[in-house]
Amino acid sequence: MVNPTTNTDFTFRAQKQLGELYAALDSGTGREVQQMLASLSPQSIAQLLESSPPHIRQVLWKLIDQDVEGEVLQELPDEVQSQILSTMDTKEMVTIMEGLNADDVADILQQLPERVMAEVLSAMSESDRKRVESVLAYDEETAGGLMDTEIVSVRPNLTLDVVLRYLRRHDQLPESTDNLFVVTRKDRFIGLLPLTKLLTTDPSVTVREVMVTDVDPIPADMPDDEVARLFTKYDWVTAPVVDEHKRLLGRITIDDVVDVIREDADHSLMSLAGLDEEEDTFATVARTAPRRAIWLGVNLLTALLASWVINLFQGTIDKVVALAVLMPIVASMGGVAGSQTLTVVIRGMALGQIGKSNLGWLLSRELASGALNAILWSTVLGAITALWFGDHRIAWIIIAAMVINLITAALAGAILPVTLRAMRIDPALAGGVALTTVTDVVGFMSFLGLATLYFA
Amino acid sequence: MVNPTTNTDFTFRAQKQLGELYAALDSGTGREVQQMLASLSPQSIAQLLESSPPHIRQVLWKLIDQDVEGEVLQELPDEVQSQILSTMDTKEMVTIMEGLNADDVADILQQLPERVMAEVLSAMSESDRKRVESVLAYDEETAGGLMDTEIVSVRPNLTLDVVLRYLRRHDQLPESTDNLFVVTRKDRFIGLLPLTKLLTTDPSVTVREVMVTDVDPIPADMPDDEVARLFTKYDWVTAPVVDEHKRLLGRITIDDVVDVIREDADHSLMSLAGLDEEEDTFATVARTAPRRAIWLGVNLLTALLASWVINLFQGTIDKVVALAVLMPIVASMGGVAGSQTLTVVIRGMALGQIGKSNLGWLLSRELASGALNAILWSTVLGAITALWFGDHRIAWIIIAAMVINLITAALAGAILPVTLRAMRIDPALAGGVALTTVTDVVGFMSFLGLATLYFA
Repeated sequence: MVNPTTNTDFTFRAQKQLGELYAALDSGTGREVQQMLASLSPQSIAQLLESSPPHIRQVLWKLIDQDVEGEVLQELPDEVQSQILSTMDTKEMVTIMEGLNADDVADILQQLPERVMAEVLSAMSESDRKRVESVLAYDEETAGGLMDTEIVSVRPNLTLDVVLRYLRRHDQLPESTDNLFVVTRKDRFIGLLPLTKLLTTDPSVTVREVMVTDVDPIPADMPDDEVARLFTKYDWVTAPVVDEHKRLLGRITIDDVVDVIREDADHSLMSLAGLDEEEDTFATVARTAPRRAIWLGVNLLTALLASWVINLFQGTIDKVVALAVLMPIVASMGGVAGSQTLTVVIRGMALGQIGKSNLGWLLSRELASGALNAILWSTVLGAITALWFGDHRIAWIIIAAMVINLITAALAGAILPVTLRAMRIDPALAGGVALTTVTDVVGFMSFLGLATLYFA
Repeated sequence: MVNPTTNTDFTFRAQKQLGELYAALDSGTGREVQQMLASLSPQSIAQLLESSPPHIRQVLWKLIDQDVEGEVLQELPDEVQSQILSTMDTKEMVTIMEGLNADDVADILQQLPERVMAEVLSAMSESDRKRVESVLAYDEETAGGLMDTEIVSVRPNLTLDVVLRYLRRHDQLPESTDNLFVVTRKDRFIGLLPLTKLLTTDPSVTVREVMVTDVDPIPADMPDDEVARLFTKYDWVTAPVVDEHKRLLGRITIDDVVDVIREDADHSLMSLAGLDEEEDTFATVARTAPRRAIWLGVNLLTALLASWVINLFQGTIDKVVALAVLMPIVASMGGVAGSQTLTVVIRGMALGQIGKSNLGWLLSRELASGALNAILWSTVLGAITALWFGDHRIAWIIIAAMVINLITAALAGAILPVTLRAMRIDPALAGGVALTTVTDVVGFMSFLGLATLYFA
């Protein structure tokens, strides 16, 4: 994500803005901060809020112009939204959400306790409530939860000329409209009318003659990551969402899909460290510490397992203390090699590339690559050991143990994520811990075990 | 990235297709495979190629319908492109690239050795060559390298009616056109004319009166990750690219930006394992092994450093062998805690959230969170140690060492990436190794050092 040679500019400007803002906050007068904020776009204000610790967020929020509060709120990540909402009453919430798209309102409402959500909904105008409820009916992580209900639809029997005149009666079209949706009298989706076609075709032609029909509309219950894959695969800007009877419900726009793509892509990175992909960078200690505690607890258990293995060989270590010095190397190299395989496989799985038909090839590639590196680096380590401790026996033992552990690492790195997925356990979350448990146990066991056989 | 409960469908279908394809390949007749491929979209064919080992890619490529070869090639990741190009001669390449956008052709050409690229360029028609060369003039990772040169521009003094008639003379408009670009007679960019405005405004009005002028065009030398941030921030679908004199050069479309976003997001995940974000999942052993070797070598050095530290305390371990059993726990818990902090900071930096003005707060949050967890888990570990070895002295030593190491981990996890960035070293690539070096060294040093003070 961070590209050290290029993103300095962006970071530099964002951070400069933040620095100026904090300086203004410190100097005391809210007026100056208010003026600064008023000169910024809602997106930039959201970026400043996201980049601030919670107590500053609260102060800043109060200084934002009321007119843009809704837009700013909508740009914020879930965790920050709920933090800010927690300080508002129902009336304020309703005011803020006026003028936002139904999908954005639904997103925000889902950060609220159920009771508050019901209150806010019942305080909204009936038409707004209906639109929002049609989105809330679907899980947040499905096409229905992503869709917005502002759509322009036309009938197939109209001529383009009529469509053009119909559009001209609108003050504006929904943002990033690239297609009109063609529907039957019963609102069933039958095709798309791209604006580019509308503009380049003879106006006397009917919609039916030019509409695009080879696009499958998205069922409202499709998971959002699958929606994202379709958008990426077919380069869509917007796409229609339908219910089980093919009735048009709304549309999904690429900007919401980009958020899904970003979160999905962050998922592996964050999960491998036991974190949530939506984790707020500036969460409070009260939120951060307990989450981290669980992960550390899990890892303590696996570390204790490794210690238990070492404990089996106390006698041998007591005889040859050099073993204690060298044993972490074998375990650590296994962990590093295994993580590489694991990362490649987890990413390949996320891209939908890996399954039964090619896992065999991948496994053999990893084994071959692992074996080559095992030979290379175990030889180097063997030579170092022989020189360092002047003991050829330990050198041979560490060579054998490292070869065993690097090959185990390749096997485990490739097989663990696939097995975990088959068991419906998230490989990105559990894969890293499972892997290091294997490479630690096998690393210590092989090195100390071989040494025990030899020196016993 | 992988969401185990939802992406099974997608993976299942993709993998089923792959299974059927391989079965058809095995059964021998190319005809059947050819028919299967002919029924698929270029995007789906690209997905199948991406998900296949190199030797199968070559076979499949020969069975693809010539008409879609260009589109398929363009969808493939760089590494796979260059693999497939390596089997073609200049004439084939020129034929394949006809009909592709200038930016896609430029991307493909950049996979070729310079000599071959020059050959292909000189074999292209002059107009095509010029378009491609205007993109090639810019680095692949800048706005200029991302842009495509197919644009529709209009003059400000025209009425919308004239624009509408002008558009109707086109057979089609470039894909995902959402704005026309308004330029002066000297081709300088002055504004955008959204199609949605063109369609909803009185045709007698002039372009100048309705055009959007508060959008800054993108300078051709802007880094691609910054372009991606602008698109995400302002929900753009396309954006104009200009040279240093504000002359319109081309446009960037969201589909290319999505690829940048995906790669940027993958960067941290892959770099932390010493991998390249564009790494081909099915790269050959010959490509995989050397890349991995370098990373393993770097890690061997850091592991040796840790061993050297342990070696300093040989005498103490010789006296109290339980120390050897327990020492990996202290090091490993430090590594886990540090990775969590490191991951949060690296992601925050990639999002442009972290800088001088908030690093202090973040560091104190990490220290507080680290200290709380240190107290919790070191107490647990202390109790286990006391029970296991029946030795209160070792229990107290391990408690102290773990507190020291977890606090060090929080410090290192927060400060290392920021320091590395200031030194223009990629924190995602070097951060993980640097961190475990610190937590291993401090972990072994504090535990064995305290033990030496105590037992000496």
